[in-house]
Amino acid sequence: MKDQFKNSERGYVVWLTGLPGAGKSTLAKGLYDIYQRRGLKVEYLDGDNLRALFPQIGFTKEARDEHIRRVGFMASLLERHGVIVIAAFVSPYRQARLQARRMCRKFIEVYVETSLEECERRDPKGLFKKARTGEIPHFTGISDPYEPPQKPEITIRTEGSSIEDSLRELIKQINTICDL
Amino acid sequence: MKDQFKNSERGYVVWLTGLPGAGKSTLAKGLYDIYQRRGLKVEYLDGDNLRALFPQIGFTKEARDEHIRRVGFMASLLERHGVIVIAAFVSPYRQARLQARRMCRKFIEVYVETSLEECERRDPKGLFKKARTGEIPHFTGISDPYEPPQKPEITIRTEGSSIEDSLRELIKQINTICDL
Repeated sequence: MKDQFKNSERGYVVWLTGLPGAGKSTLAKGLYDIYQRRGLKVEYLDGDNLRALFPQIGFTKEARDEHIRRVGFMASLLERHGVIVIAAFVSPYRQARLQARRMCRKFIEVYVETSLEECERRDPKGLFKKARTGEIPHFTGISDPYEPPQKPEITIRTEGSSIEDSLRELIKQINTICDL
Repeated sequence: MKDQFKNSERGYVVWLTGLPGAGKSTLAKGLYDIYQRRGLKVEYLDGDNLRALFPQIGFTKEARDEHIRRVGFMASLLERHGVIVIAAFVSPYRQARLQARRMCRKFIEVYVETSLEECERRDPKGLFKKARTGEIPHFTGISDPYEPPQKPEITIRTEGSSIEDSLRELIKQINTICDL
């Protein structure tokens, strides 16, 4: 119990950014499960889930930036109370990610680097197809820009690696930064 | 330290609703200070502060409801991690407050009941004056409705009481509910 309390003092934010289909949610969920099993205080914020909760958010640059700033604020509140926050969001704009970073104390930006070709090949939700036909407008990577991080704390290249290996690499790198 | 951990397991949401000028922020800040001094894990969410952070929120019914749902979601995340959340929002619509309530586990609705006349007399931010001249549209109590809670967990009548007495009453009633 004492040990768990110690952990609860260690809030930080793991922010996964990357193209749709890059593997952000898969890595984030894997990380969340492992942290939970370790008894850490952890919360998972996910682009899809939050958009399901607040369906009226649009996909213009302004709407996206506003959304990311809100998530940054939520993350900072949880972090302040010792929660590890795992956030998986396309978050395509550098400036918005920087704003989220500035709200938080310890912000670990994870660039989930997967080529557009590979993301489109995976197309886990069939969204690339719809973006290509124009059925979905403002689709990051196709009709909307993605600004990759210039100096992310961590870069995970998912191509040619299994999910397990990518997850192991991610945890290893977080541990180096957070000295767990 | 052990005792503090015990407290950290006890998240709940104290949601203060009432007209502008009713005394919500004053009571909320007082409560927050007392909880902080007791070493409790506590967060304060305030309508004015959040609107300052996200200035593009409007004052239409839709915008207000959306805002309250978001705050409810934030509160529920914090509560889940053992944080006591004190939220002070006009939150004029019953349905939106109900949505916030449903997101949370333990939701204590506090109706800060002050007559419109008294709120207008106090007018701490000079907003009623502007609302009367029409400079501020959509002003709750003047040009926008306020739906008082039908069955709030707690009602605090501020007229004829000092701030200290109202705060004492509030804490007494919360303690009864939360068995602290």
